[in-house]
Amino acid sequence: MSVRSVVEYDDASAAVRAVFDDIKRTRQVADVNNFWKYLARDPATLKRTWQSVKEIMAPGALDALTKEMLYLAVSVSNGCAYCIASHGAAARKAGMTDEMLGELMAVVGMANETNRLANGYRVPIDPAFEE
Amino acid sequence: MSVRSVVEYDDASAAVRAVFDDIKRTRQVADVNNFWKYLARDPATLKRTWQSVKEIMAPGALDALTKEMLYLAVSVSNGCAYCIASHGAAARKAGMTDEMLGELMAVVGMANETNRLANGYRVPIDPAFEE
Amino acid sequence: MSVRSVVEYDDASAAVRAVFDDIKRTRQVADVNNFWKYLARDPATLKRTWQSVKEIMAPGALDALTKEMLYLAVSVSNGCAYCIASHGAAARKAGMTDEMLGELMAVVGMANETNRLANGYRVPIDPAFEE
Amino acid sequence: MSVRSVVEYDDASAAVRAVFDDIKRTRQVADVNNFWKYLARDPATLKRTWQSVKEIMAPGALDALTKEMLYLAVSVSNGCAYCIASHGAAARKAGMTDEMLGELMAVVGMANETNRLANGYRVPIDPAFEE
Amino acid sequence: MSVRSVVEYDDASAAVRAVFDDIKRTRQVADVNNFWKYLARDPATLKRTWQSVKEIMAPGALDALTKEMLYLAVSVSNGCAYCIASHGAAARKAGMTDEMLGELMAVVGMANETNRLANGYRVPIDPAFEE
Amino acid sequence: MSVRSVVEYDDASAAVRAVFDDIKRTRQVADVNNFWKYLARDPATLKRTWQSVKEIMAPGALDALTKEMLYLAVSVSNGCAYCIASHGAAARKAGMTDEMLGELMAVVGMANETNRLANGYRVPIDPAFEE
Repeated sequence: MSVRSVVEYDDASAAVRAVFDDIKRTRQVADVNNFWKYLARDPATLKRTWQSVKEIMAPGALDALTKEMLYLAVSVSNGCAYCIASHGAAARKAGMTDEMLGELMAVVGMANETNRLANGYRVPIDPAFEE
Repeated sequence: MSVRSVVEYDDASAAVRAVFDDIKRTRQVADVNNFWKYLARDPATLKRTWQSVKEIMAPGALDALTKEMLYLAVSVSNGCAYCIASHGAAARKAGMTDEMLGELMAVVGMANETNRLANGYRVPIDPAFEE
Repeated sequence: MSVRSVVEYDDASAAVRAVFDDIKRTRQVADVNNFWKYLARDPATLKRTWQSVKEIMAPGALDALTKEMLYLAVSVSNGCAYCIASHGAAARKAGMTDEMLGELMAVVGMANETNRLANGYRVPIDPAFEE
Repeated sequence: MSVRSVVEYDDASAAVRAVFDDIKRTRQVADVNNFWKYLARDPATLKRTWQSVKEIMAPGALDALTKEMLYLAVSVSNGCAYCIASHGAAARKAGMTDEMLGELMAVVGMANETNRLANGYRVPIDPAFEE
Repeated sequence: MSVRSVVEYDDASAAVRAVFDDIKRTRQVADVNNFWKYLARDPATLKRTWQSVKEIMAPGALDALTKEMLYLAVSVSNGCAYCIASHGAAARKAGMTDEMLGELMAVVGMANETNRLANGYRVPIDPAFEE
Repeated sequence: MSVRSVVEYDDASAAVRAVFDDIKRTRQVADVNNFWKYLARDPATLKRTWQSVKEIMAPGALDALTKEMLYLAVSVSNGCAYCIASHGAAARKAGMTDEMLGELMAVVGMANETNRLANGYRVPIDPAFEE
């Protein structure tokens, strides 16, 4: 299989199709994203990853929008272009406005700045934080 | 000045004291955290960092709790122990429960996993994400 | 020299050609990869980097395939697209199958996830690990 | 619950005990590591993480030692002290010698160096790598 | 607003134009870079970021060239392609030669290598460094 | 050998002693740092790493102080506590003042912030940067 080949629904095994079907049903979409088509090269990882994402991203103590924004914040911080695009789209779909995106980006930028200042000065943890 | 020395209020210049006073007033705390005491070694950076943090973390399109959780998520992802402790404490103060922390951590972990899967398979961005 | 210029064999100095020749001979390839052509802008770094890579990647206590997979795993984790492509190709040449790549990617993804969980909960090191 | 509290077997819920028991049985150990005791604060994440780790780390196309070394390489690259200690111990248990560790560390160091050289010179991917 | 839309001067608000004008005046350039045009989607972050960059990058105890090289070194280490291109151009404008770039890249590469060796062997800090 | 064992001069092989002697001579120090004592567990990596560091850190187009500050900036950005301590000490020895350290830290912090803003908005590279 070529390094850049992708698994489309029509060529997929029954196991892969079952995951694709569950993604489409859960998310109410006509087709799965490229991420899942590439992951389908390895059916075990496809299935496990989807099950984990489905469980983790379901609303719980945190609502769906907050979870998508946390996912986006980490992806921006890590510089994963694909994940910024896909979770940016998912967050907007869940209700993130341009103003919310702007504030999210400001927090991510600032956290990355102060993370380095804290590391650089090797600041010891305040005892009060441990209580 | 020793590498590990810290600036306490009583030994601080008027410029540093003004920042410390504003932090204490804004956050309603009796003393500033170690982060600010170490940063006070460089008064210009202390002042600019506090002004930026104050502006960015004020409630806006996102509420204070969401902002603190985004800050914590980035700090966990970057592995900054000090920032995890300080923003973990701030998030709890703003209302984050143990259940919310558990879900935040699960999202951060999963985002770090799928960021690598997307990078590793060099998944091309779906045109639909660009609209 | 333009930022994006590259050094081809025919235009290279004797020092650069000597490195290119050793790479081609060692790897049994007709031409060197873009990485070396860009690095050739700085002959001292070209020479030192090649010598280090040649020494490190030679089979020893670990065989060539394991070393290439470790290199690939780090590159995936760091999100270096060029290195993922080049060391992915090198690993396949050394015998990595699609199944092995799938398992490698799963381990890299999982390690990135649990690295954050361990950092986020600031888990203390078990004394047993230090023995 | 305090930020630094840990869940011991005797105080654990039945759901947590079931996971702890499966870890101890699978790994043939008398007690679980601190990582699992901290993760047990969030039983859903504990269960999902253990199931994923158990599935991913089982020997397949790659043997257990290679998988542990890949895990260790990523943890070293990310600077996760806990994970370096725990997966270092696991890799040694699976057969990693001092010589193998030395070579692993050399590869991780070199990959981190050339990842930056490739990024810094923004080297374009060779067409041959895409085949 | 589309995810990929950019704010050009003619369509900008008075607040955004004021920042763009100050950037052009300070840097003596005819137009601002794409970075500022994208940031202008969020005027508060645009203004704060420019003020911070302007203050931080002004010559002080370190000259402009050294500051640009430090900025470039961090951007190379983080793998931010845009920042490598923009701060690479700024550093060259401030006097960085090809030889200086080559040495900068060598230091960044080496630091990334030894950072991992120090982490991987979990080397304890020498007491002498703390004085 | 225990995971945390270190190689002292008196117990070292002739090959390790030769490297230790060269470090002490080159740096005019009475003993080598912990970094080298841990690295000595793997004599080949010890020798290669020292040769590379010695060559890279020698004054050239960039002076010794600038090189140490670049090394420190990368180490702060990566959060390597050992490297921050050791290269912080080396930079101070080479002439870095408290004011210079303050400005270096401000640049590192800012670069980490704008790296994320550029990634997050996926800003396209200006054609002018490629000339």
